[in-house]
Amino acid sequence: MTDVLALDSAAQDLLFREARTANTFTDEPVTDEQVQAVYDLVKYAPTSMNMQPLRVVLVRSAEARERLVGLMADGNKEKTAKAPLVAILASDNEFHEELPTQFPHFPQAKDLFFGERPVREAAGSFNAALQIGYFIIGVRAAGLAAGPMTGFDGEAINKEFFGDGEHSVLAVVNIGKPGEDAWYPRSPRLAYDEVVTTV
Amino acid sequence: MTDVLALDSAAQDLLFREARTANTFTDEPVTDEQVQAVYDLVKYAPTSMNMQPLRVVLVRSAEARERLVGLMADGNKEKTAKAPLVAILASDNEFHEELPTQFPHFPQAKDLFFGERPVREAAGSFNAALQIGYFIIGVRAAGLAAGPMTGFDGEAINKEFFGDGEHSVLAVVNIGKPGEDAWYPRSPRLAYDEVVTTV
Repeated sequence: MTDVLALDSAAQDLLFREARTANTFTDEPVTDEQVQAVYDLVKYAPTSMNMQPLRVVLVRSAEARERLVGLMADGNKEKTAKAPLVAILASDNEFHEELPTQFPHFPQAKDLFFGERPVREAAGSFNAALQIGYFIIGVRAAGLAAGPMTGFDGEAINKEFFGDGEHSVLAVVNIGKPGEDAWYPRSPRLAYDEVVTTV
Repeated sequence: MTDVLALDSAAQDLLFREARTANTFTDEPVTDEQVQAVYDLVKYAPTSMNMQPLRVVLVRSAEARERLVGLMADGNKEKTAKAPLVAILASDNEFHEELPTQFPHFPQAKDLFFGERPVREAAGSFNAALQIGYFIIGVRAAGLAAGPMTGFDGEAINKEFFGDGEHSVLAVVNIGKPGEDAWYPRSPRLAYDEVVTTV
């Protein structure tokens, strides 16, 4: 099937087929330059009305790492403590304030669609999740492994790392070069016919 | 910055920098073989506990297309009527039934985490949104343009195209080769320093 695609086979492998969720990492650091290259690539991927609710907190200090590890689910603590870099990925629920500059050809966007907090949070979380998908692909594009996690005390992370009541953590991602025994055998995927139907 | 990345520059352009959300398309059909190649590539990207809530409905009959167009927001009707292929992307809120086979090394996953519908819907929507991000990248990997939309009557689409009360549409995506004047000038993106902070 692969020659049906325009993307070359090596890139397919790098981003999807050989890339795996890593649970262990080498000691090699992940630089700010690498994270910026990831962001400056994936920022172009599409969202609803060019909303950009994703916020990324790079947890680099030992003190901040310790606070974060304490809020992760037990099964995620050790790898979060040891990864070269850990990123907290959250939705900024006040993202609509940026719409007048980010979606300039529809100046009413901010006022028309985002007056109500629940509507805004739903749009923010959906679009931030799209951006998290792009970010994970971007980490792989940098030749790094991502270890995305959703097992944590989200309310506590929101309070501890944002504290303004306006951010919702959606994922925490370990980033680095894969280490020894970095992953489990790949779990199955649903077949095409289980997912795709035609009407 | 691009040489910081492992992904080659042509692939970066194909997936992120030159790819754009298309609003017009050529008449060239999009085949089932192409959609299957997209799915069989992006199915490997990660989700929480290997959840796979995404369901894809390919709207191929004229009758189904007409029903869908009637439920799209006014600004989305014409392009949805004309695109070579339209896909409805939804979350299956009963995805937890598949966890015992899809995440076999943690047999309790289904029971422990998905007893309550709101919890399940939130996990399903988040992970389906990740999968939609991957799917959009996959469409671009096939050398096609995606035109993802969130402006539609979601409850009506759920009833009209699923009808079982167990699916939530999250996006509708036009797919094809870009046509004349396929896109607007690119809107701005937030700068790295507006999105990424370090603690």
